[in-house]
Order: sequence, then C-alpha cells, then structure tokens
Amino acid sequence: MKTLKIATIPGDGIGTEVVPAAIEVLKTVSEIHGGLSFAFTDFPYSCEYYLEHGVMMPDEGLEKLKDFDSIFLGAVGNVKLVPDHISLWGLLIKIRREFEQVINIRPAKVIPGVRSPLVHPKDFDLIVVRENSEGEYSEVGGRIYQGEDELAIQNSIFSRKGSERAMRYAFELASKRKKHVTSATKSNGIVHSMPFWDEVFKEVAKDYPAISTDSQHIDALAAFFVTHPERFDVIVASNLFGDVLTDIGAAIMGSVGIAPAANINVNGKYPSMFEPVHGSAPDIIGKGIANPIGQIWTAKMMLDHFDETELGTLLLDVVESVSNDGILTPDIGGKHSTKEVTDEIINRLKQ
Amino acid sequence: MKTLKIATIPGDGIGTEVVPAAIEVLKTVSEIHGGLSFAFTDFPYSCEYYLEHGVMMPDEGLEKLKDFDSIFLGAVGNVKLVPDHISLWGLLIKIRREFEQVINIRPAKVIPGVRSPLVHPKDFDLIVVRENSEGEYSEVGGRIYQGEDELAIQNSIFSRKGSERAMRYAFELASKRKKHVTSATKSNGIVHSMPFWDEVFKEVAKDYPAISTDSQHIDALAAFFVTHPERFDVIVASNLFGDVLTDIGAAIMGSVGIAPAANINVNGKYPSMFEPVHGSAPDIIGKGIANPIGQIWTAKMMLDHFDETELGTLLLDVVESVSNDGILTPDIGGKHSTKEVTDEIINRLKQ
Ligand SMILES: CC(C)[C@H](C(=O)O)[C@@H](O)C(=O)O
Ligand SMILES: CC(C)[C@H](C(=O)O)[C@@H](O)C(=O)O
Repeated sequence: MKTLKIATIPGDGIGTEVVPAAIEVLKTVSEIHGGLSFAFTDFPYSCEYYLEHGVMMPDEGLEKLKDFDSIFLGAVGNVKLVPDHISLWGLLIKIRREFEQVINIRPAKVIPGVRSPLVHPKDFDLIVVRENSEGEYSEVGGRIYQGEDELAIQNSIFSRKGSERAMRYAFELASKRKKHVTSATKSNGIVHSMPFWDEVFKEVAKDYPAISTDSQHIDALAAFFVTHPERFDVIVASNLFGDVLTDIGAAIMGSVGIAPAANINVNGKYPSMFEPVHGSAPDIIGKGIANPIGQIWTAKMMLDHFDETELGTLLLDVVESVSNDGILTPDIGGKHSTKEVTDEIINRLKQ
Repeated sequence: MKTLKIATIPGDGIGTEVVPAAIEVLKTVSEIHGGLSFAFTDFPYSCEYYLEHGVMMPDEGLEKLKDFDSIFLGAVGNVKLVPDHISLWGLLIKIRREFEQVINIRPAKVIPGVRSPLVHPKDFDLIVVRENSEGEYSEVGGRIYQGEDELAIQNSIFSRKGSERAMRYAFELASKRKKHVTSATKSNGIVHSMPFWDEVFKEVAKDYPAISTDSQHIDALAAFFVTHPERFDVIVASNLFGDVLTDIGAAIMGSVGIAPAANINVNGKYPSMFEPVHGSAPDIIGKGIANPIGQIWTAKMMLDHFDETELGTLLLDVVESVSNDGILTPDIGGKHSTKEVTDEIINRLKQ
C-alpha cells in the first residue's frame, strides 16, 4: 500500500468548502485504486489564523509542511480581514518561494457542458508554464522623495537559471503534447528583462529541434487567447505574464471556478503545492454554492504529479461527464450545490 | 478658415495603405465642414528609411514635427527589416516620450456588423487611459554576470506625477461618461510600484466624490474584459497593463484592425499623436485588404481632440453604418477591399 502524506490548507473563504469536497473525492479515488491511500493533515493557516495569532503561519509552519508529499491548498486572502500583501506574502507566496516551487502550471481546455464566453471555443487545449519564483514579483525596490516628487522603483529580476528552468519544463511538456512552445515576451517595450528572456528562449529551443516555437508579445498573446486559443499548445511565461494569461485561460473556459493549478518543486527537496486558480470569493462563503471543479481538477493534477496518471485521467473524465450532464454550480449556469456536484462525481467514480 | 497642420507618418506595412485612406476621409470631412481644412505633410520615417539612412528618423526629425498641430501615424515596425527595439524606440516610443505624450487613450465598444468573438458582447463601451511615459517601459536596468549566473534587472519607474496625471485624466473623462473609474493594479504580487499606484489612486479619487471607483488586479481585470466588458466605463492603467488591456479590448470588438488610439500631450508644448492599435501586418501588405477602420476611427479621435466633436461623432456614425451594412474587409469577415470600404465611408459622408 502506497500512502501519500498530504498537508491540506483550506485557507480562506470558499477554500474551506471546496477543499473538504475534493478530499472526499480523493478518498473515493483511493478506494477505487486499492493500493493507494492518502493521509491528510489539516493546517488552519488563513486570515482568521492571522487575526488570532498575528501571523498567517507560525515560524515552524514551513518546518512542519516540509516532510509532506504535497500540499493541497484552497484559497488565501480576504481583504476584509487582512491586507492582501500580508496574507499572500505570508502564506501562498511564502510557500511557493521557500519550497522552491519554481514552476506553476495551469491548463485551460474546453470542458463539455460549461459555456465559454467565446462564440467558437473550438477545441482549445493549452497549458501555461509560468515562472513562479522571480521576475516581476520581487521584493526588490523602494521609494525616494516625498510628496509631489515621490517615485517608486520596482525591480524585476530575471535569472538565466530561473528563465531556462521554466523554458525547459515547457519544452519537456510540449514533447509529450502537440510539440509547440510559445514564449510570452514584450521585448519591444520592456528593453532589459524581455530581450534577455528572448535570448534564453532561443538558446533553450536549440536543444529541442523536434519542438516548433514562436514568440508573441504579451498584448497580442492576450488577444489571441480570446480570438484563437486553439492555436496554442504550451506557453511559457514570466511570473506576471503567466498570471495574466492563466486568468484569461480560466475566463475562456467559462469560469475561474473550474481552473486548476500546480506549483511544482522540481529539485525534489520540498513538496509541491496544488491550488486552484480561483480566490477565496468571500461574497459566496457559507452559501454552499462554491464550484468544486477547480479544486477537484487540481486534485487530478496532484494525482498526475504522483504518476497516477490513469487515475488522474479517470477523475477528469468523470468531472467532464458530470458537467456535460448539466450538473453544475450557479457560477457556470447551473442550479446545483457544491455538495450535489461533488456527490455526483463521487457516485460516478464508484461506478 | 481654420487650417490644421498635420504631420503624417504612414510608417511600415499596411500603415502605408490605411493612412492615405484615412487622409481621403479627412479631406471629405473638411469639405463638409467648410470652415476647416487640413494641411498634410508626409514624413517617410519607417524601417525602409532606416535601411537607407541607418536611423528611423533623422536628428532634426523631432524639430520638424514639433510645430505641427498633430501627428497622424500608421504603424511602425517590421521585424523582417529591423529589430523591433530599434524601430519602435527610434520612432514610435521616441515621439511618445520626447513630445511628452504622457497619456494614451483607447476606446473599445461594440461596432455594429463586426462580429465579436464573445457570445454576449452586450453593449460594452469602455475606454482605457494608459500611462504612456514611464512605468514598466523604462530604459533603466541592465545585466550582471555571464553564463549560468547571468541576471537581467529591469526597473519599473512610477512617479507620483506620472501616475496622478493619468488618473486625473481618467477621472475627468469619466465625469463626462458613466462616472466610474477602475484602476488596474497588481499590488498583491508586485509589492513596490503597485501599492504606490493604489495609494495615489485613493488620494486622487478623493478629489472626485461624484465618480465611483474600484480597483482590480490585472489578472482578474483581463478576465473580466472577456466575461463582463459591459461593467466598465473608464479604466486607468500603467503603461504595460494598459497595453495588455487595450489589445484585449480590440480583440473583443472583433479585430485589432478596427481599434483606434491617441497619444496625448497634456501640457500643450508638443503635438499629440494619433495611431491605431494595430501593427504593420507585413503579411498582408500590398494585397489591398488592410482594414481602414482603425485608422479612420483614429482620425475621429483626432477630430475630437481638436474640439470638432460633432464631426468626430458624424464620422464614427458613418463608419458604423457602413460596417452594419456588411461592407467590411476580410479580417472581420467581409469581402471588401481597403478602397471599397473607404470609398463607401466617403460616399456616405458626402450625403
Ligand atoms: C509596439 C509596442 C512598443 C507598443 C506598446 O506596447 O506600447 C504597442 O503594443 C502599442 O500598444 O502601441
Ligand atoms: C494572489 C496572487 C498573488 C496570485 C499571483 O498573482 O500569483 C494569484 O493571482 C495567482 O495567480 O495565483
């Protein structure tokens, strides 16, 4: 029996509703499998935890999380309780960085039964590989002068190591898919970091002669995600560009509520973390209508990560059969509750 | 008789096709008006100019352009001839900066007859006010180390003056529209420049109690442009965020080929510059099928800028009546040529 130790952090808002739902689903998956089980340990780190303890996570938090096989996170942040920069940098971004989860991957594809805002969503099926540790999200910078003359300076830091790592990940992924990598750039406007990114991309591409490539400026690329998403296979992007593209990816699928994500530690030193794209949605907390698909699809990515790709594929197939039958939460035009959608997924998994 | 001196720079690719088309339209407008005329002076600055002279624009170029009432530009850039950073920073961005065109405005709205990629484009009618002189587009930065350890550092520079100026412009604009301003931010991830931007926004907002506001992270905002564009009125954004949002704005209208833009000098020292959002589209050059609407709508923005708003409104009405009748170029599903669309607009203007 293989037992995977999973640290669960439901976090804030609907995170506390969809994480338990996805855990039920994972338990069902392990029953089906027989040889696989999960040991879940819950951690209360959240904005409420902050209000009580003055920190999003205690000092020994990382130490505790370190030895799990993975972290399964719901959502972090609730500006009504704690300013975003405190909640996110104290928990989500902290784990991403301290555990060297240097790659963020987010697929977007047509999910049957979920209405896309696009007239012709065709059969897009893309995946964004986002550099997850540096780039535009940096703590380097500051301010000078006061009043009228005040200036804020923000440094984006792009290392060859970091850029190359994300790019190689993208090429490896593409080699198992449609064999195309698109690089998101903006070297025509941002003249230091982006030309560097382009250079590294060109060099890395040489090592993958079987993969075709193109490079698109982020403005055009964002527009193409709306007009021609079916043209893409794997897109590699900096931290910020990946962030923007994946929200558009979620939007064209029909809802941010169904979009999954994984923060991958590639050197094997620390656990990876699986968290859906959506936020904590404080406006619908307690109503029982949060869409569980994002969190459940995220569980599928975790299964894939543990090389349980057959189970992962089965799980997404079941999710798609449920969505195709119109068993959906209100955010994607349905009338069902979190529990009803989850129960239906569990029932069909058991069949 | 009021005569406006217009410097025309067709630039590259289809710029050389749509600028002459829009000039014909403007000439017709002046015939209708009677009291208004345009004196056009053409400048050959372009990538081809670069190949001949080694510069995109001669040293005395800015000196020559300085005394015009405005600049009417087509498109700059053709990577097959000249690398983008040379062509753009040597001409387009150079003029934006040297002539202190610190604001870029780009509307996006439903144009009848032009199919949007959105299922429910509803009646969105928004305008993005983009900070056009600083922010993420800065020449400050560089590299350190070679090989494996190489790092590129890119500085984004946000001044209170620059941010506030763009914001005030947005609030003034909103006061003549639906009285709402949305600020594009990313203060949860980008922790120096964006919290500063948010602070300035909050302070400026206090001076406009009649205008409602909200602040959205750029990732969510990009997604909302796809799912709920009708929710927006005026959006104020940094240089990069404005760039991305306006391309999405163009995409949801149906084509980047119809989207207009203006680079505004607000201190009256230098001319403003009017240029559509689309690029030079080298792949369709010479085919006679470039969409002239972007350039013609840009001419409308120039008329508005000269306080000829009645003429501006008339011009856009005529464009919309032509598009509504399906007289469109291939990029937006029509069968007509640049000349046919332009001629039809001219004919209807004359009626
Ligand atoms: C060509 C490029 C530098 C430019 C920009 O990003 O400003 C363009 O995309 C635009 O939006 O006018
Ligand atoms: C909450 C925020 C800091 C985060 C990010 O931008 O990385 C989120 O948008 C995401 O994409 O996971």
